[in-house]
Amino acid sequence: MQEKITPISELGEFALIDLLTKNNNQRNVASLKLTGDDASQLAISEGEHTLISTDMMVHGVHFDLGYFPPQHLGYKAIVSAISDIYAMNGQPKQVLLSIAASSKISVEFLELMYEGVYAACNDYNVDLAGGDTTTVHRGLILNITAIGTAKPERVVYRSGAQENDLICVSGDLGAAYLGLQLLEREKQVFHQNPEVQPELNEDYEYLYQRFLRPDTRNDIVKKLAETGVLPTAMIDISDGLSSDVLHITKQSNVGCRIYENKLPIHHNTTAAAEDFNLSPITCALNGGEDYELLFTVSPSHFEAVNKMAEVSIIGHITPKDTGCKMITNAENEFDLVAQGWEPFGSERG
Amino acid sequence: MQEKITPISELGEFALIDLLTKNNNQRNVASLKLTGDDASQLAISEGEHTLISTDMMVHGVHFDLGYFPPQHLGYKAIVSAISDIYAMNGQPKQVLLSIAASSKISVEFLELMYEGVYAACNDYNVDLAGGDTTTVHRGLILNITAIGTAKPERVVYRSGAQENDLICVSGDLGAAYLGLQLLEREKQVFHQNPEVQPELNEDYEYLYQRFLRPDTRNDIVKKLAETGVLPTAMIDISDGLSSDVLHITKQSNVGCRIYENKLPIHHNTTAAAEDFNLSPITCALNGGEDYELLFTVSPSHFEAVNKMAEVSIIGHITPKDTGCKMITNAENEFDLVAQGWEPFGSERG
Repeated sequence: MQEKITPISELGEFALIDLLTKNNNQRNVASLKLTGDDASQLAISEGEHTLISTDMMVHGVHFDLGYFPPQHLGYKAIVSAISDIYAMNGQPKQVLLSIAASSKISVEFLELMYEGVYAACNDYNVDLAGGDTTTVHRGLILNITAIGTAKPERVVYRSGAQENDLICVSGDLGAAYLGLQLLEREKQVFHQNPEVQPELNEDYEYLYQRFLRPDTRNDIVKKLAETGVLPTAMIDISDGLSSDVLHITKQSNVGCRIYENKLPIHHNTTAAAEDFNLSPITCALNGGEDYELLFTVSPSHFEAVNKMAEVSIIGHITPKDTGCKMITNAENEFDLVAQGWEPFGSERG
Repeated sequence: MQEKITPISELGEFALIDLLTKNNNQRNVASLKLTGDDASQLAISEGEHTLISTDMMVHGVHFDLGYFPPQHLGYKAIVSAISDIYAMNGQPKQVLLSIAASSKISVEFLELMYEGVYAACNDYNVDLAGGDTTTVHRGLILNITAIGTAKPERVVYRSGAQENDLICVSGDLGAAYLGLQLLEREKQVFHQNPEVQPELNEDYEYLYQRFLRPDTRNDIVKKLAETGVLPTAMIDISDGLSSDVLHITKQSNVGCRIYENKLPIHHNTTAAAEDFNLSPITCALNGGEDYELLFTVSPSHFEAVNKMAEVSIIGHITPKDTGCKMITNAENEFDLVAQGWEPFGSERG
């Protein structure tokens, strides 16, 4: 009998996760919330809940050793992992880092990478609390587990957005994606002619940095606490605004309207997008790896969030049957589609 | 200026870990014990401490997709991860599983693998509490983070062994290593002549099972608690008895004597070792992946551990300056040497 063979690319990441976790049963009462959010929630202690999240980063998929400085790689690995804890409105406390390194990776590379790891640990006040070190035939693979805490009543899920809630985003969008495009272009130029020195445009420094050494928004989590604003839903933008807003609307069982003219885009992002004949809006919607926080708040918090310098109100939550749409500057509507990061199947970009 | 390039193989895993963690500073008071044991200890709650451990498993390094049934791979991944929590005398509660799968891995393979994951979760009463799913160019990579709890006064480190303590080990040793040798031999036969059906010797069923679908010793942790025995040091045997006993003696700053005639070896292990012209004792000392518990207890607990059916007393702790030696049946002494699992440099075996 021929057994059925389905390529993973046929399903895609999220359908695969659904498939693989549909038989997952909960055995411990302390395991409060196991899937569907950025981090899992555990009731280990009485006063605070534990949040935990794990992420794998693979050379050739999530980063390219050809142009990724090791310090930045280490820094970004930690930032992208603890960003999931902030996205639950928690405080990251510890990280665990597993690495599988091929024989081409030198000790010096790893030392520099760990410099970046410790720099991020210092910046965000987390401890490297363990790990594993092994080998792989090719490339480099990292896995980062982030552990954090939050008061149970302060934990924010993806599933709490309500009709009429305001949709807010921190910082600006699309810059990391254009940083990646610039680095890929330089790599191709170098491959065609190794004599040519890469031309790193200083105007684009911001874009490189957003891709290679991103920050995560602990400041926003702090500001929300200080101003007494508890978001109804929150997620970090790792897959891209479209994908991530759809995670919230799907899990909250609502629709949304996003306004093109409200999307925060850095002027360097706009310039670089034009350089690549790309729409800056498309980059902002589908770019990913911004590590900004996307959250919804009750309309009663309009004034508080409107005052936050680093936060843009980009739309609002609507009833589910109205769908999830972007309103363009010309007042056309189009459906938001998850076109972000998809590890299986087509390559990013 | 020529930058220095040191191959990782020059250092080896443990020296690399020492190097990479020497600048690790602790920032959170709740991060009690970050390195040097099977799991890290976090004081998240007031009554119980949290133990956490992470392990990476790589195709071609830790397992071979050519002969590893997916259910067994999933089962073993969980068992090997939670074994680190038992080795701290804790109770595992949650696991997180990251996978990076190449396009050759089918959805059906992953479904079967997750069957094994859930079977192990059921057998050991732990929850799969999250994970990550991504892609890799070649093979399959798993990372498992295990989280457990223990009363602070019951946590056992590698560093507590005292002079005159008894050295105890659960179950038997060397079987998993010979299971691996048998599978590797069958793979070579198959490569030389794909027409030949692999000859799976039923007498060796136990050895295959010990390698492909190991158990972990929650029963021993339970028995220790019931009989009021608190080990002075404990570790699980993943690298091999020699390596792992040396982890304890190094961290406890002591020496040891192990007796050849006390090493627990299954009769099928002895038979298979002879088949390969190997010494069963060498297999027991250096084989690894037994996932048995190696622990030291005060001599006052002799009677209690001597009564435990699944525990062998194999030696005792001596002053550091006497070294770490095995006494053979012919009453010769030789130094114990860490020849177990080394991911960088020479291949296992």
